[in-house]
Amino acid sequence: MKILCNNASLCGAVTNVSKAVSERAALKSLEGIKFKLENSMLELTGYDLEIGIKTVIPVKSDDSGEFILNARLFAEMIRKMPSEEILIEVSENFQVTISGGVTTFNIPATSAEEYPALPKKEEENKITISQPVLKDMINQTKFAVAVTDLKPVLKGELFEIENGTLTLVALDGYRLAVRYEPIKYDGSLKFVVPAKTLSEIAALLGDNDEETASVYLSKNHVVFELNGYLVYSRLIEGEFHPYKSAIPTTCTTEVIVDRKELIAALERSLILISDRTPSPARCYFENNSIKINCSTSVGKITDEIKADIAGPVIEIGFKCKYLLDPLKVIKEDKVKLQMSGSLLPMKIVPCEGDAYTYLVLPVRLAKE
Amino acid sequence: MKILCNNASLCGAVTNVSKAVSERAALKSLEGIKFKLENSMLELTGYDLEIGIKTVIPVKSDDSGEFILNARLFAEMIRKMPSEEILIEVSENFQVTISGGVTTFNIPATSAEEYPALPKKEEENKITISQPVLKDMINQTKFAVAVTDLKPVLKGELFEIENGTLTLVALDGYRLAVRYEPIKYDGSLKFVVPAKTLSEIAALLGDNDEETASVYLSKNHVVFELNGYLVYSRLIEGEFHPYKSAIPTTCTTEVIVDRKELIAALERSLILISDRTPSPARCYFENNSIKINCSTSVGKITDEIKADIAGPVIEIGFKCKYLLDPLKVIKEDKVKLQMSGSLLPMKIVPCEGDAYTYLVLPVRLAKE
Repeated sequence: MKILCNNASLCGAVTNVSKAVSERAALKSLEGIKFKLENSMLELTGYDLEIGIKTVIPVKSDDSGEFILNARLFAEMIRKMPSEEILIEVSENFQVTISGGVTTFNIPATSAEEYPALPKKEEENKITISQPVLKDMINQTKFAVAVTDLKPVLKGELFEIENGTLTLVALDGYRLAVRYEPIKYDGSLKFVVPAKTLSEIAALLGDNDEETASVYLSKNHVVFELNGYLVYSRLIEGEFHPYKSAIPTTCTTEVIVDRKELIAALERSLILISDRTPSPARCYFENNSIKINCSTSVGKITDEIKADIAGPVIEIGFKCKYLLDPLKVIKEDKVKLQMSGSLLPMKIVPCEGDAYTYLVLPVRLAKE
Repeated sequence: MKILCNNASLCGAVTNVSKAVSERAALKSLEGIKFKLENSMLELTGYDLEIGIKTVIPVKSDDSGEFILNARLFAEMIRKMPSEEILIEVSENFQVTISGGVTTFNIPATSAEEYPALPKKEEENKITISQPVLKDMINQTKFAVAVTDLKPVLKGELFEIENGTLTLVALDGYRLAVRYEPIKYDGSLKFVVPAKTLSEIAALLGDNDEETASVYLSKNHVVFELNGYLVYSRLIEGEFHPYKSAIPTTCTTEVIVDRKELIAALERSLILISDRTPSPARCYFENNSIKINCSTSVGKITDEIKADIAGPVIEIGFKCKYLLDPLKVIKEDKVKLQMSGSLLPMKIVPCEGDAYTYLVLPVRLAKE
């Protein structure tokens, strides 16, 4: 089997499908990329049994066949190849010669016979969404995905489609992140995608408003199609937490604050906090200013920032990181904080529109 | 004690003296920066008993005194302070208030009483050298410093001044790196500086040709003075290896080759090499080409690059990394390789001038 490839397009494809290849797998062939040659098209597949990434590049070849090459090794070889074109030759007994210019590598390939099959892409339940929008939705919620194994369904994000709105939800028991976007889809859908898949998807998604991604839903898996790549992922089974009822619909105190100033103040408190010296940031909302104090065995800080505050004075404590995480992924300059008491969650919403809702549970404060 | 500092100059000084502060030291005060206030000048010192870094910045203050603050914590605090000026107040019982704008930190300081004294700077043996030249000399030799504890003297670099030439030498038994530069100094000097000191020095040295560094030599230590910083270091005792006799003065085969092409070819061989699959690169010099082959249990590579070759054909093996290290620090496009047989070291020298000499020991090749 002889295949002549353009090095740049081969490198791009190998880099991206490698994201679904395990560095160390029980099955040796899963440490490799599966190549399938047919009709002058070379299909590349990486698959770690959770996520599969597949793409196709045009090549020059009259042959057809399949083989597996170690992903890390092959990627390094072609990246360091001095030529624009690369010739791959695979012998009957799976000896592979990779050559470009005067450089020639010889490595063994593996038969693709035992390579596991990817699930099928089903065309029935198809959603289409702008790539940068989906990228934002993932990046602005994934921090709240649970890291614990206690509730497997919380290690993914809920995709919910209802009444023309796509909602992404992540929560871990301490905070909740929800992103809403309008979508063209008649009917309703609900499925939970593993966080790891979404990180890979976010990395593949582009920033061009004109480009879209398609999402194909099956019973047990989902397929994302974007920029010539198909990303296959299992879904997480189980009932997602009924998040809607957790979001308060009223509040007593409402604050509008500069997001970056609030981040800077919380990060100063964070200097004194570590695993060995945990402590909440004590926030005091009064007279159009937020006073933030924090005291640990390392030292003390008192800080203050301006804010527009409406409603009764509130003193409330937060784990710094839990407040910082949503603030850091928001893009707007100003945010609105809504509270109803020092033991009830703070809601973070945009000053205009309703693209996101974050909830952060407070920490009960000791008397000062 | 009240001190008003410009935040930018304080940050710069703290960052640089922190390089000599241990993250974890037996003596708690060595995890801190020592501050000494006198005549509106604030002296900052970091010292890990091997290397000491000291500088002075102008401040506004009518007081005088000494105290120690945890380096990591203080650096983070001032870096995240929202104001251009910072006020440091130290109470009688070493409680410190650091404030800027509406932000105030309170942390405890330590008494500077038990802080170890730095060695003295002696003015007698003083060398002056251009900063970028010293930086190059260090960066182009330090890779060859030994990492083993077997011969402590090889964990440093030899500074040798003789007949108006400063020579820096590093060697580890497998390769030798020597850099020569003319220097204005009457007499001869010889001392060995620990590699760790030289890395810190190289980081502090600037790229401006106009600026110089001064080196003050004492019996047991050396002081570098540059850009307002004093860097103190112990010297390594012991007789340095007589490197001069190791450098061959003749050769039979001489090669001129493009440095980057040779690097690229060796890095391709390196893909197949690891600790578990060691193997030399087999280099064959003939007919104005260098053929490089490498074979490990991972796979095989054959490579070839053009070169100007004078003298008899040589087949010689090298550990790839040992050849790559000097090639990567050289700046010129072309280098000259000099050999006298497959069991004798290769000498790498510039095509013009004599600024450097590298020696690399070959690896005995098995019959193919």
